[in-house]
Amino acid sequence: MLRSAAKWLRVRYASTQSLAQRTPIKDLVPHDKDSALVCGWVKTIRRQKNLSFITINDGSSFQSLQIVCDASIDPAALDNVSVGSSISVQGVVTRAPKSGQVEVQAQSVVVLGKSDPSIYPLSKKYHSLEFVRDHLHLRPRTNTFGALTRVRNALSQGLHQYLQSNDFVQVHTPILTSIDAEGAGEQFRVIRDGETQAKDSQDQFFGRPAFLTVSGQLHAEMYACAMSKVYTFGPTFRAENSNTSRHLSEFWMVEPEMAFAGLNECMGSAQGALQAAVDFALTKCEDDIAFFHKSDEKAIDRLQSLATAEIPHVTYTEAISILEAAPTKFELAPQWGMDLKTEHERYLAEKHVGGPVFVTDYPAALKAFYMRENDSNDGPERTTVAAMDLLVPGIGELVGGSVREERLEILERKMLANGINPLDLDWYLDLRRFGSVPHAGWGMGFERLVLFVTGLENIRDAIAVPRTPGACRY
Amino acid sequence: MLRSAAKWLRVRYASTQSLAQRTPIKDLVPHDKDSALVCGWVKTIRRQKNLSFITINDGSSFQSLQIVCDASIDPAALDNVSVGSSISVQGVVTRAPKSGQVEVQAQSVVVLGKSDPSIYPLSKKYHSLEFVRDHLHLRPRTNTFGALTRVRNALSQGLHQYLQSNDFVQVHTPILTSIDAEGAGEQFRVIRDGETQAKDSQDQFFGRPAFLTVSGQLHAEMYACAMSKVYTFGPTFRAENSNTSRHLSEFWMVEPEMAFAGLNECMGSAQGALQAAVDFALTKCEDDIAFFHKSDEKAIDRLQSLATAEIPHVTYTEAISILEAAPTKFELAPQWGMDLKTEHERYLAEKHVGGPVFVTDYPAALKAFYMRENDSNDGPERTTVAAMDLLVPGIGELVGGSVREERLEILERKMLANGINPLDLDWYLDLRRFGSVPHAGWGMGFERLVLFVTGLENIRDAIAVPRTPGACRY
Repeated sequence: MLRSAAKWLRVRYASTQSLAQRTPIKDLVPHDKDSALVCGWVKTIRRQKNLSFITINDGSSFQSLQIVCDASIDPAALDNVSVGSSISVQGVVTRAPKSGQVEVQAQSVVVLGKSDPSIYPLSKKYHSLEFVRDHLHLRPRTNTFGALTRVRNALSQGLHQYLQSNDFVQVHTPILTSIDAEGAGEQFRVIRDGETQAKDSQDQFFGRPAFLTVSGQLHAEMYACAMSKVYTFGPTFRAENSNTSRHLSEFWMVEPEMAFAGLNECMGSAQGALQAAVDFALTKCEDDIAFFHKSDEKAIDRLQSLATAEIPHVTYTEAISILEAAPTKFELAPQWGMDLKTEHERYLAEKHVGGPVFVTDYPAALKAFYMRENDSNDGPERTTVAAMDLLVPGIGELVGGSVREERLEILERKMLANGINPLDLDWYLDLRRFGSVPHAGWGMGFERLVLFVTGLENIRDAIAVPRTPGACRY
Repeated sequence: MLRSAAKWLRVRYASTQSLAQRTPIKDLVPHDKDSALVCGWVKTIRRQKNLSFITINDGSSFQSLQIVCDASIDPAALDNVSVGSSISVQGVVTRAPKSGQVEVQAQSVVVLGKSDPSIYPLSKKYHSLEFVRDHLHLRPRTNTFGALTRVRNALSQGLHQYLQSNDFVQVHTPILTSIDAEGAGEQFRVIRDGETQAKDSQDQFFGRPAFLTVSGQLHAEMYACAMSKVYTFGPTFRAENSNTSRHLSEFWMVEPEMAFAGLNECMGSAQGALQAAVDFALTKCEDDIAFFHKSDEKAIDRLQSLATAEIPHVTYTEAISILEAAPTKFELAPQWGMDLKTEHERYLAEKHVGGPVFVTDYPAALKAFYMRENDSNDGPERTTVAAMDLLVPGIGELVGGSVREERLEILERKMLANGINPLDLDWYLDLRRFGSVPHAGWGMGFERLVLFVTGLENIRDAIAVPRTPGACRY
């Protein structure tokens, strides 16, 4: 009673087998001796007396495909063809006489699924980004979000490829965590449905309060201090009640972490990963990226030149001097010790450099407890840490990283100064007790990279199903 | 005030730059004319009168490296070298005269981080899996978990490579969801810290109850019905209060979804992905996999033959007949209509087939509402759905998949019969209202794949930082 799945099923499931013979639109070869089967969703239909033109898209590329139906196609077969409907077409692959574009001369057309034009939300020609954001489940069918999905995928693969080929091992660090890293309500709490936020550990599913991670870094350090080079690439969460074009409640981060490394390797690998991701997307999604930048032809040149150029570098102290001397009135006047705001970050990248720039050695008071204090400082009031941010035009901070404090006593002192009980992170301190090593790492907000490459402005358009305060319908 | 980051930093951060010149142990070339710098954590040290031997591992491969320190090394330099400490060694790369193994003749040894042997938890030679599970933060330094981390990474990359090269586009489906798919307390609820489980939408961060996803499938369907072939690969969650070697509260799933496809493509792609992942891991992590199977030399042959063999196939109805005729006493007697338990699944894979096997066409009553009803059935009491499970030896179910119900009326009827309000999933029904297409997909529990390939038995050993009821310390 055993049989080869492939052979037997060819018979048993013959009905769907036929559709599986389809050729993705991106792979159609004109003037192939065999006719081809193509499937997709209808974007336009134009009916003439003896000739109808249908364009379909199947998501395999930006290019939609024109189907030419001449008099040999029974007009009744096209009755239910409307925008949004799905069809399969058997036909001959040719090139359009004038445009040279690949098209299909239909031999038969089958409607797989209808779409009532009177209620299909995307039946009109152009829709704003705001409009389709209210129809999240259909927006991947638009040109913009088809392109977005492919570019996002390519950027993700480009990052994986760079990291894997440079000996980084991916570690799936936990989403559920007891680390209350940010403190004070900026984190989501996780409970079993029906459970209360009891303080009593007996009533808690995990025996203690559990939260959604805001960063995989501390757990990545756990693995870097054994595997040397690791990275995490996963979702992270912020319960910030901010309704802006820059905030998501759920977003993806890539976070490499390297042992035996300092700020130099931190910047080198951030630059390398950014370049590899952009380069991979430019190669793999040429049409998609051209579409995003159709009104700014220099944008693609800028992306291409990024892939080879060395990213310049200033220290925080130098950046403040540059901002103080800038012929621009900032909402917040630059001053040593202040956190750089997006207006300052964008000035540095867009006006001063005209491209990405690293800023390093920030005041210790601005940065997290785990960042390594620099050995030489300009006095105790100007203590800096070996941190780096990568600022890019249009976005501001794309990458943030640092050398991690590997000295047990200094780390304990800084935890206490930051109101963190060292006993709560005893395992993290153990990494400094037993075979501590110099190590460093960085994190890149993946949606910010998507915005940077596509030129889109609202971060809700950079992720498949965005989560923001009040928005969890889909 | 701008400079090339790379050049300038070489001077400024010279202290860490020296360590960055290290060669990963896996890349050492014996008899290179230059001496090499290697770094790692000490696994053993053996002191003799004029000669000391240290082995270190840096996570780059399973093989540890022997460092030979002759009389030219000041014994005081080795005073703080102990198990668990981290060192850097400059030396000449050679081969050990007898074993032929790569080793390093030390010219200098520097202790980077000490490790007090009286308190280092892993100082003894052998530790059980249970013991190191209580020291999660140090377990990646053990042979087993170094190997596990590399194999898991390779399996993940193998899956990505198969899917990407077969035109699947990765979509990061949301972790936060309002879909209450499993119902009745098996899901985690997400609230803003300090919030209560209020019914009143005004008090809820997302304006409605939010949960952690149990599957990305429905959102993957959203994208498959526009992009044709997509997959998700991310964390999923179950709030089940089960403390067994088979349950995790947080685990990773890969879930491909294909438009214009049926059960045949479902099985074909599941087989292809499994074979590609195993093949990639066998190639990339030969030493690691050999270590896991050192007591069962046939295990690697079985994994290798899996990579080329066609996986056989039986229907559920046939499987029940096989089990009824089996010379085995099951805890639960086989009978048409019952859910297959792990004992049945393992019998089919281990005894009847001796390898992986697909079981298809399960009773509709056992399966989720979205699985497609088969057109021909043996009467209304034997209604089946176009579902498939891939069962493998040692594990039971590794993959579960199905054709999805693409017919609006049948899907609505089945939702109501399953107590689901169609209005709650109106967007999901829209995918059937507007250009519905035959589509199918599957999900693979990634930790089960890790167990299958490594032969480990407890799923807590298949993930970096396991989460189970009562366990969220790290």
